Amino acid sequence: MTSNDPGSARAIALAHQILARDVRAIARAARWVDDARPEAGPLLRCLWPHTGGSWIVGVTGSPGAGKSTLCDQLISAYRRRSERVAVVAVDPTSPYSGGAILGDRVRMSRHASDDSVFIRSLATRGHMGGLSRSARDVARVFDAAGYNIVLIETVGVGQDEVEIASAAHSTLVVVAPGMGDGVQAMKAGILECADAFAVNKADREGADASARDLELMLSLNAPATLQAAFRADHGGTGAGRGLANRVATEGGEEAGWLPSVVKCIASRGDGVDGVVAALDQHRSWLGTRAGRARLRARLAQEVRASLREALVSAALLDLAPEIEAAVDAIETRSMDPYSATDRLVARFRARPG
Amino acid sequence: MTSNDPGSARAIALAHQILARDVRAIARAARWVDDARPEAGPLLRCLWPHTGGSWIVGVTGSPGAGKSTLCDQLISAYRRRSERVAVVAVDPTSPYSGGAILGDRVRMSRHASDDSVFIRSLATRGHMGGLSRSARDVARVFDAAGYNIVLIETVGVGQDEVEIASAAHSTLVVVAPGMGDGVQAMKAGILECADAFAVNKADREGADASARDLELMLSLNAPATLQAAFRADHGGTGAGRGLANRVATEGGEEAGWLPSVVKCIASRGDGVDGVVAALDQHRSWLGTRAGRARLRARLAQEVRASLREALVSAALLDLAPEIEAAVDAIETRSMDPYSATDRLVARFRARPG
Repeated sequence: MTSNDPGSARAIALAHQILARDVRAIARAARWVDDARPEAGPLLRCLWPHTGGSWIVGVTGSPGAGKSTLCDQLISAYRRRSERVAVVAVDPTSPYSGGAILGDRVRMSRHASDDSVFIRSLATRGHMGGLSRSARDVARVFDAAGYNIVLIETVGVGQDEVEIASAAHSTLVVVAPGMGDGVQAMKAGILECADAFAVNKADREGADASARDLELMLSLNAPATLQAAFRADHGGTGAGRGLANRVATEGGEEAGWLPSVVKCIASRGDGVDGVVAALDQHRSWLGTRAGRARLRARLAQEVRASLREALVSAALLDLAPEIEAAVDAIETRSMDPYSATDRLVARFRARPG
Repeated sequence: MTSNDPGSARAIALAHQILARDVRAIARAARWVDDARPEAGPLLRCLWPHTGGSWIVGVTGSPGAGKSTLCDQLISAYRRRSERVAVVAVDPTSPYSGGAILGDRVRMSRHASDDSVFIRSLATRGHMGGLSRSARDVARVFDAAGYNIVLIETVGVGQDEVEIASAAHSTLVVVAPGMGDGVQAMKAGILECADAFAVNKADREGADASARDLELMLSLNAPATLQAAFRADHGGTGAGRGLANRVATEGGEEAGWLPSVVKCIASRGDGVDGVVAALDQHRSWLGTRAGRARLRARLAQEVRASLREALVSAALLDLAPEIEAAVDAIETRSMDPYSATDRLVARFRARPG
């Protein structure tokens, strides 16, 4: 890619407009990324040096948990302290819940006339790996465009959605009483990537039990030093509990983060301050040595995932005829599949792209 | 690998014993594969030319659907026609359902004293990709050892389990009335890989409705030519329906396969003949042009998956220091993650392993 390439030139021009916070340019960039247009690559490369200023918050939860209502309340809370907020809303791929989407967007529309709030839905493309990458890259466009906070809202039902949420700096998992969300969360591996839990619809029966179950699961899951902190913390009472210090220390060093569990009623705005505070506390923790180590580990994970994807697509493209020939040989049993794989790898490495 | 390598020499010796159908050698080989021992590779390469004689049948379904009971009945049915049968039982990774396993093995134990039946449980290793590969490779050991039929029994709850089942030549999905299995099946993509459905516990309420729902889903999912065949087929009545011709023709060519839906009560042996017949019919179909094309497509899929895995593990191993350096550069924003990925790929290809 050189700057003589017209695609690249367009990308550079658009990058300039994005850095100048031009809303239409930002919208176009999000579309380029979502559509996987060839110009998206050069654009993201141009924007990279200007990213890193945003705090990216994943918000995930089962359909009906009240995710969007809570997002709406979070936007209002952040706007009150003059933060610029962008939202990447990832549509669920399930054909059954498509109807909820429009509702979500409508519910958030009271921020539509606010220039400091930008909401973008990503289309459903069917391939979740791509969706996860799109969400991350659109968040980076918003980052470069100077939004202090970027919320990534996804329906947390499967492994792929967990992947999207866990790409954020801080991940909020929204559950509602009586939905079996706790077990669901454990199954999907959400427990490992959640930095805070909001037990929404806390006026419903079972809210206390849900919160208790989550606290218990978290404490069982935590390392010993955090368990000690949890027990001390758990001695506290009432509303203060969720906001107690979630950071365990070990020889003066922060040893890790124990997610908070906060109850709220998003539809009435009750308890939203608690959710905001829990997330803020995690944001502060990210600045500690342990927090920085976690951010670095996630970045390393992203690099490995990108490398994996780039290698595989290059290999499948470059080796298409060799793969067909290998299948022929394996089918007639003149070659075994294990040796065939070794040869294909050697072939790929011996012929730089 | 040369035959001077002691691991390889042991593998060759074991391969000879397996081809001679030595039961203790077969058990040892299964353990080598399951434990991912280094000798497993050479062994599988030695055995490959002697594979291809087995019909590999995946049996999958939710916990409680009666999978193991049905497997037990299938073994009996196949034994009555003097086929040698091996079973690869894949333990669920879920910590919650571990208890069911022992029960399953006990239920199948009436075949334990039969030399022509071999049952092997794979351990839970936590990494499902590995489990899927182990199941496939253990099935190949059994294939080389002259078992005509290899059943791979897995709990069909997630994408990975679907992957295990779909590696088989024919896949039977076991559902029970009132478990919401139909919707579950669609979500997990089981519909695409099922070649026959057994609606077990057919004396329970809702069995007819479950069978009807599955038939309907299948017909909606099928290509137009198959839909026509389905409608003709659906005109039939009662027990015969499931065994009607599931193969649509298009200009004299077989166009595809429409899965059968057969009701049974495995615990009493009722309807098991119907399940056996449905599977046999699919086995015959595999010999047609369309069936052979499907087998080839699955083999090609396996080669691509192995290639992907081999490339990724070689790259992560060989490039470990380069990846760390890339993360440093990205973190300080002196390099963007997109360019870093390109460079890592180029580095990998320029330095043959």
